[in-house]
Amino acid sequence: MKEKYAIGVDIGGTTTKFGTVDRKGRILEQDRMSSNNHDAVEDFIEELHSKLSPMIKNVGGVGNITGIGMGAPNANYYRGTIEYAPNLKWKGIIPIADLIYKKFGLVTKLTNDANAAAMGEMMYGCTKNIKHFITITLGTGVGSGIVIDGKIVLGHDGFAGELGHTIIRPGGRLHKSTGMHGSLESYASATGVRDTAIELLTKFPEEHSLLRDYSINELTSETVFQCAMQGDKVANEIFEFTGQILGESLANFVMFSSPEVIVLFGGLTKAGNLLMNPTKKHMEANLLPIFQNKVRLIFSELKESDAAILGASALVWE
Amino acid sequence: MKEKYAIGVDIGGTTTKFGTVDRKGRILEQDRMSSNNHDAVEDFIEELHSKLSPMIKNVGGVGNITGIGMGAPNANYYRGTIEYAPNLKWKGIIPIADLIYKKFGLVTKLTNDANAAAMGEMMYGCTKNIKHFITITLGTGVGSGIVIDGKIVLGHDGFAGELGHTIIRPGGRLHKSTGMHGSLESYASATGVRDTAIELLTKFPEEHSLLRDYSINELTSETVFQCAMQGDKVANEIFEFTGQILGESLANFVMFSSPEVIVLFGGLTKAGNLLMNPTKKHMEANLLPIFQNKVRLIFSELKESDAAILGASALVWE
Repeated sequence: MKEKYAIGVDIGGTTTKFGTVDRKGRILEQDRMSSNNHDAVEDFIEELHSKLSPMIKNVGGVGNITGIGMGAPNANYYRGTIEYAPNLKWKGIIPIADLIYKKFGLVTKLTNDANAAAMGEMMYGCTKNIKHFITITLGTGVGSGIVIDGKIVLGHDGFAGELGHTIIRPGGRLHKSTGMHGSLESYASATGVRDTAIELLTKFPEEHSLLRDYSINELTSETVFQCAMQGDKVANEIFEFTGQILGESLANFVMFSSPEVIVLFGGLTKAGNLLMNPTKKHMEANLLPIFQNKVRLIFSELKESDAAILGASALVWE
Repeated sequence: MKEKYAIGVDIGGTTTKFGTVDRKGRILEQDRMSSNNHDAVEDFIEELHSKLSPMIKNVGGVGNITGIGMGAPNANYYRGTIEYAPNLKWKGIIPIADLIYKKFGLVTKLTNDANAAAMGEMMYGCTKNIKHFITITLGTGVGSGIVIDGKIVLGHDGFAGELGHTIIRPGGRLHKSTGMHGSLESYASATGVRDTAIELLTKFPEEHSLLRDYSINELTSETVFQCAMQGDKVANEIFEFTGQILGESLANFVMFSSPEVIVLFGGLTKAGNLLMNPTKKHMEANLLPIFQNKVRLIFSELKESDAAILGASALVWE
C-alpha cells in the first residue's frame, strides 16, 4: 500500500478550496483560488494544477495519491460533469472530471457540494457508523446530502437530494433565482433569515428592535444573531420562525427516508440553540408518533473551513 | 429447483386477501377473510392456515413453496412485526412473521402494504427494469413505497416511506386520525376528495352542481368522478384541486430521490385524466429545471384485486 493520500477540491461559487488529505481526514496542506478568474475551464484547471503540484510533490508524487475527489454546484456524479451552474463562469455542460483526469493522471470523482459534505460526515465526522442520515447545509443557500444504507442517494440521473428547493409554504416567498414560491431555501438560508428580518421590520413598524440600527446592507444572519443574543424580541422571533420552517421540512424528510440522524451544517448553525430549539420542536410536532423522539438532530462537528476539502476528498475512499 | 411458488397475504383494515402465486406473477388460487373476526392474532392465523392449507396442497405441499410474503399496515420489515396498527384489533406489537413461520413452517417476510405494492410493480408490473421509482397508493388513505437502486427504502427503523403524512399545506385541513394539519393524505385520498367536495359545496352555496343531488353519505370520490364526467364544474374543480396538491407533493418527492418513474395506484386513479392532467401540470410547475420533463408519471397496470396478493408475494423472491 503505497498510495495513501487523496486530493480534495471544492469549487464554490466564488472560491475554490483544495488540499491533500490522508485516510484519517487530516489535511496536510491546503490553499484556495478564485473560481471565476478564468473564462475557459481549461485555464482554471491549469492554475489548479500549478497550485496543487507542489503539494503532490510533498506527499511523494502522483504515485502516492489514490485519486481526486471534487465537490461542485450542479455536479453530476454519474457523468462527472458540472451542468448549467448559475454561479460559475463556465456555461453548459462541463466534463470537468474527465478534464482533471487528463491533466493530473488521477482518477477523479465529482459530486455536488452538499453530497460531499455528507460524505465528509460519514468518513470523518459525526456519522461514522450511521447508515441512514441526512446532512442539511445552511449557508447562503440550503443544500442536502441524503444517505440511505450507507450510500449517497443520487437518483436515476445523479441529481437527487435538492431538499432546499422543496416547497414548504405553497404560494409563499419568492425565491429569486429559481422563481419558485415558498421553498425551504427561501426561508432557512442566510439570505432567508435576512429576508425574514426585513419582512418583520416592515410588517411591524411600531415594534422596537435593535435591528433597526443596521442598514439594509448590514442586516445579515449574523447581525440578527447578535441582536437575538442581546434579547431583542424581533431577532428572536426571526430564529423561531426560521426554525419552524426548517423543522416542518425536516419532519417531511424524516417521513421519507426515516434517518437515524440529521446533521445541520453551515454558517446558520452558529446561531446554536436559537436555531436548534425551534427546529427540534417543530420537527417533532409534525412527525407521526412512530417517528417521534427517534431522530438525533445535531450540528456538524467538522470545522467549516476544512469540511469542503474533507468532504470532497472522501469521494476517493468510497 | 422444486420450490417455485409463493404465498401472498395482504392484511387490510377490513379484509385479508391471500393466495398462491408463481414466479411470473400468476395467482393460482385466492380467497379472502375478515381481518377483524378474531380478538387473538393466534385465532386469526388459525383461520388463515385452514383456508390456505388446500391451496398449499394443490401446488404439491409446503415443500413446493419458497415462503410467505405479507403486506400489512404499520408493518416493520426488520422486526416482522405489526406495531400499533390503528385499524386492526390486535393492539401493541404483534410478532406476526414469527407466529406465521411457526404455524406454517415457511420463511415469512412482512412489509407495509404500500411497500408491498411497490414490490409488486417491480416484480410483475410496470417498473420491471426501473431502479428508481416511487409508488403512491391513492385509496382511503395515501401510502407510498420508495425504491432507490432497486431496493425498497426502509430507513433505520423500517418505517420509511410515509409520504401520505408529509405536510403540503401547513396549518391546513385537519387529518382526523393523526391530528396533523395539511398532510397529503387529508387531500389526495378518497376521503380527501369527499372532504374537498363538502368544503366547496359549503363555501359556494350559490354554485349549481350535480353533487348537490347526493346525500352526504352518497358523496364519494366515485360520485364526484361521475359528476365530473358529466361536465359538472364543481366536480371538475375538485379533481383539479386534488391534482394540484398531489402534483406539488410529487415535485417535493422528486427533488428528494430523483426517481425515473412515479406509479399511481388505487381507487382514485379510476378518475384517469381528470386526476392525471392537473397532477402532472402542478408537479412539473414545482420542479427545478434539472428535474422537469424527466419523470414518467403513470398509472399502475396491475389489476387492483390482484395487486395486494402479488405485491406481498413478491417479498418472497426478493
